[in-house]
Amino acid sequence: MTEIASIGVDWGTSSFRLWLLARDGAVLAERRSGQGMQGLAPDAFEPALAGHLAALRTDGLAVPKAPRIVICGMAGARQGWREAPYMDLPTALNDLPSGAIEVENGLGADIRILPGIARRNPDRPDVMRGEETQILGLAGTSQKDLSATIILPGTHSKWSTVEKGRVTDFSTAMTGELFALLREHSLLRHSLGAVAIACDPLNPAFRRGLTQSTEKPANLLQAVFSLRARSLLFGAGNADIAAELSGLLIGAEIAGALRTRPERLILAANAQTGPLYAAALHFTGMNFDTVDVEKLACAGLHSAARLIWPTPREI
Amino acid sequence: MTEIASIGVDWGTSSFRLWLLARDGAVLAERRSGQGMQGLAPDAFEPALAGHLAALRTDGLAVPKAPRIVICGMAGARQGWREAPYMDLPTALNDLPSGAIEVENGLGADIRILPGIARRNPDRPDVMRGEETQILGLAGTSQKDLSATIILPGTHSKWSTVEKGRVTDFSTAMTGELFALLREHSLLRHSLGAVAIACDPLNPAFRRGLTQSTEKPANLLQAVFSLRARSLLFGAGNADIAAELSGLLIGAEIAGALRTRPERLILAANAQTGPLYAAALHFTGMNFDTVDVEKLACAGLHSAARLIWPTPREI
Repeated sequence: MTEIASIGVDWGTSSFRLWLLARDGAVLAERRSGQGMQGLAPDAFEPALAGHLAALRTDGLAVPKAPRIVICGMAGARQGWREAPYMDLPTALNDLPSGAIEVENGLGADIRILPGIARRNPDRPDVMRGEETQILGLAGTSQKDLSATIILPGTHSKWSTVEKGRVTDFSTAMTGELFALLREHSLLRHSLGAVAIACDPLNPAFRRGLTQSTEKPANLLQAVFSLRARSLLFGAGNADIAAELSGLLIGAEIAGALRTRPERLILAANAQTGPLYAAALHFTGMNFDTVDVEKLACAGLHSAARLIWPTPREI
Repeated sequence: MTEIASIGVDWGTSSFRLWLLARDGAVLAERRSGQGMQGLAPDAFEPALAGHLAALRTDGLAVPKAPRIVICGMAGARQGWREAPYMDLPTALNDLPSGAIEVENGLGADIRILPGIARRNPDRPDVMRGEETQILGLAGTSQKDLSATIILPGTHSKWSTVEKGRVTDFSTAMTGELFALLREHSLLRHSLGAVAIACDPLNPAFRRGLTQSTEKPANLLQAVFSLRARSLLFGAGNADIAAELSGLLIGAEIAGALRTRPERLILAANAQTGPLYAAALHFTGMNFDTVDVEKLACAGLHSAARLIWPTPREI
């Protein structure tokens, strides 16, 4: 059996993902749960993690007695397990592990929580926590060389500028959260019904939303209300309204984030957001590469583990 | 005792207001309740109204046996009491009562529900229902002559262009609703706490929000997230975050609505929104008149009643 070299944990607001990693980064086992930060008091993180390790051992996996565990995400927030202070821009991806904090614990483990990154500009402050590890994963072994603008769509979409392995700037748009708020709680809930979040990028309504918010970016508050009128006056159905709202919000995100045309753009999305963002970027005439975001956190945790623990454990 | 010539009702989504009106428009009595459309099935409107009339009679008021009742607002929506179809742009304010529907009822009353106004442009459809009556009230006896852009701030802020007594265009911004959604349900709730909706227009954070959204109107989704970072990185308090969010959203509304500089601008606001919108309009260099919005619905219902029933009731 391949030896477990480290354990990576992506501990987010509403989710927990754990990977047992071999020395070469191969995933030997994975666990997922809904035990996110928002449901855990600070003293509930260690028992939660202990439960997962015990379950893995019960499953017959050779989890070391003194495992090396590297964690990214909201577990390091002020209201998380233990705060891992933000590193400031610009941040070399290779330096992220130097900002990790060690967490004393009763599990016999060497536990490190990776820092987030802060943009401390008082005109537009910004923070990320978790995405920096995905970007480290994207950079992989070539992180010294990566230069690109990286889009990580989501509840809080991140656009990060990476120059030769250093994160030099980033911005966050509240795109996914705003879509969910409008769908669940606003007047538009009557026009959106129980529609799935996923929208069809081929729907002409999606394109209409993109057109509106890229041509008239100042009109977002009016355009969003107009969707209600469209369903009242023109009988537009739930799927069309959802697609137009997606187009409006993704178009607004792009209009706000794309102040200059980056030389290289990488879209790191999942199967749900990927097609929408790809269609939107095509619409704006941007060229871009795509990568599957699902593997990036695990890859980034592996890279971090190799940087924190450069030599194998003594057996 | 002055005779009750008509009864005006402003029946909104979440509120009910009723006025007993003299022939000259003087208010003889008023009732308010939270019996809005959203809490009433279609067959619950008549009993609700009957209850108010009975209460007025119990109070000793001489409500006629066959009262003339004119209603505006969401009672005329599809999901209201009975649908009063929208009139199309352009709409002469004087013609609004011609679009009212009569409601058969068991109260012995002559009940009319005023129509809303629709903007049926497929590029940006829009609707109003209730505000047209406030504008009629603003125009008052001079409605043939009123020419102005009228701002009615609120949950759904309306900007209406009136030319010589005709509503020729309007737009709606989801400003107030979005503020409430972000305060109650978004990530920002952690930074806004239980802060009152009312914000201080003299707070420099309000001005910072205005600057941001008028100078960079495409950046709204990023600017809103940035507020969370401001509280995390700079320890900004609830009041400052609320003021900056108000500035961002009101600034975005103005940037989106003010495509041309109107010759005359009238701000029809209440004590809560008035100071914020006045400060925001000053900030953008606009001149404007202000009127108290609280009296407009009642005044408009009176004007409508005079147009519907030009002669006094026979006694």
